[in-house]
Amino acid sequence: MQAERVPGAGQGRAFHFAQKVLFKHCDPAGIVFYPRYFEMINDCVEAFFDEALDWPFETIHTTGAIPTAEISATFRRVSRHGDHLDFALAHAVPGRTSLGLVFTVTCGDELRFEARSTIVNVDTVGKPLPWPDALRARLTSDTGDTR
Amino acid sequence: MQAERVPGAGQGRAFHFAQKVLFKHCDPAGIVFYPRYFEMINDCVEAFFDEALDWPFETIHTTGAIPTAEISATFRRVSRHGDHLDFALAHAVPGRTSLGLVFTVTCGDELRFEARSTIVNVDTVGKPLPWPDALRARLTSDTGDTR
Amino acid sequence: MQAERVPGAGQGRAFHFAQKVLFKHCDPAGIVFYPRYFEMINDCVEAFFDEALDWPFETIHTTGAIPTAEISATFRRVSRHGDHLDFALAHAVPGRTSLGLVFTVTCGDELRFEARSTIVNVDTVGKPLPWPDALRARLTSDTGDTR
Amino acid sequence: MQAERVPGAGQGRAFHFAQKVLFKHCDPAGIVFYPRYFEMINDCVEAFFDEALDWPFETIHTTGAIPTAEISATFRRVSRHGDHLDFALAHAVPGRTSLGLVFTVTCGDELRFEARSTIVNVDTVGKPLPWPDALRARLTSDTGDTR
Repeated sequence: MQAERVPGAGQGRAFHFAQKVLFKHCDPAGIVFYPRYFEMINDCVEAFFDEALDWPFETIHTTGAIPTAEISATFRRVSRHGDHLDFALAHAVPGRTSLGLVFTVTCGDELRFEARSTIVNVDTVGKPLPWPDALRARLTSDTGDTR
Repeated sequence: MQAERVPGAGQGRAFHFAQKVLFKHCDPAGIVFYPRYFEMINDCVEAFFDEALDWPFETIHTTGAIPTAEISATFRRVSRHGDHLDFALAHAVPGRTSLGLVFTVTCGDELRFEARSTIVNVDTVGKPLPWPDALRARLTSDTGDTR
Repeated sequence: MQAERVPGAGQGRAFHFAQKVLFKHCDPAGIVFYPRYFEMINDCVEAFFDEALDWPFETIHTTGAIPTAEISATFRRVSRHGDHLDFALAHAVPGRTSLGLVFTVTCGDELRFEARSTIVNVDTVGKPLPWPDALRARLTSDTGDTR
Repeated sequence: MQAERVPGAGQGRAFHFAQKVLFKHCDPAGIVFYPRYFEMINDCVEAFFDEALDWPFETIHTTGAIPTAEISATFRRVSRHGDHLDFALAHAVPGRTSLGLVFTVTCGDELRFEARSTIVNVDTVGKPLPWPDALRARLTSDTGDTR
């Protein structure tokens, strides 16, 4: 996890998640099968909550969940078996119960794809809940500007 | 496969793909893990090319591929183990090498999620290729209006 | 679902499950990635409980589970994108809480792989439970011989 | 990667592969869905070839493949979201074209499952090939005894 500014990401420094492209990710064309990218994105968010926010998914899921309300991705260049991908996750100013995320995925200097999602904090029956104060503090403490 | 108009889908009648939510699709919260939805979408497109366009993926992949250039999804309601989902796939007027797709996914009368994607016809090295004439004819023959 | 004898399967007629090899199942070598076969096996067992035993997984998982205690597979021939696989599932005489399953997977006349598993009926905390009488009756009613 | 003896593993010291149980691995019962274990096993073998044998899968797959001919697993205890699993991989004396592997998977002191597989070195059309001398040397150099 390194710190840097992500242009247009709303605020904060990016969280970095490393993912080598493995055999299981690739299709008969020898490139990443795109639904696997969404598994990687979910792994990246899970690592972000665990390592950066100190609120691991395995704890969250005892009393609620963090579903994805919407997600979009634009694939710029293909990725191949053995590529070392860097997922840079930046986040917007948190809403009351939701959070916007931006993923910029590169291999070396090459942009491979970008994605944006909105996640929501919900209770066990799916009702949106305000983010806990401790989480909100962490989400805003990693930057000086709040725009 | 049944025929009907999909509002805003660009043109044509929808192709229908049935998918029961299985054990493997669900997460510890008992609902579909959203990356599995993208596998279902890919299965739906694979069935569309096979059954509606008579150009199966297993044939396409001997000389090229149909990668997804961009995709977005908005999840309205959760889906649970045992739900019978209907994927209604509609398509836009085909571009020279690309095609816009719209997916409207329901369970009974309830909208579960919507997705939009752009797929591209490419050769074995990833260079965009014009759609074959036969495919273009099929994509436009299933409707009277071409806008 | 058709009926036939499966040699060595213990007892009963085989339950048949059809699975076309799809794009998502295949690896960069163009053949089925073997962990996907275990997903297919699970889908086959899920269909068997739903269609042949009338005790669907989505009902079972409200009050318990049917975990796999052990499984083995021997892969004889590779399967490729577009192959139409037939999973023939046969079962042994049911134990008190467990059940032995045998899977014979073919494409046309060609044997692709064989697998054997033992599944167990458990409650919500994982404690083995006797099979319900109705299920035991169904498991033994589909054959005249009990060895 | 640490070194130790694995009883019954044939020869050599174990290769260790760490895998945290993530959200994507778990089913509605909150435990690892067993086909995901086979993906983890494949990831472990891929890491073994890359880190211990210096013959990464992404290199192998340009001129051949390493399919799994047979595999078996016995599941002793369930694993849950957040568990930190250790995969200890040991190997038998290499055959001419095949190699036996043994996986002992633990969480802390608790055995979760064991698996055994046989992998084969093949060319691009699936014909078995003798292991390269360099690989054979590495497979035998990590131990003093050859049984």
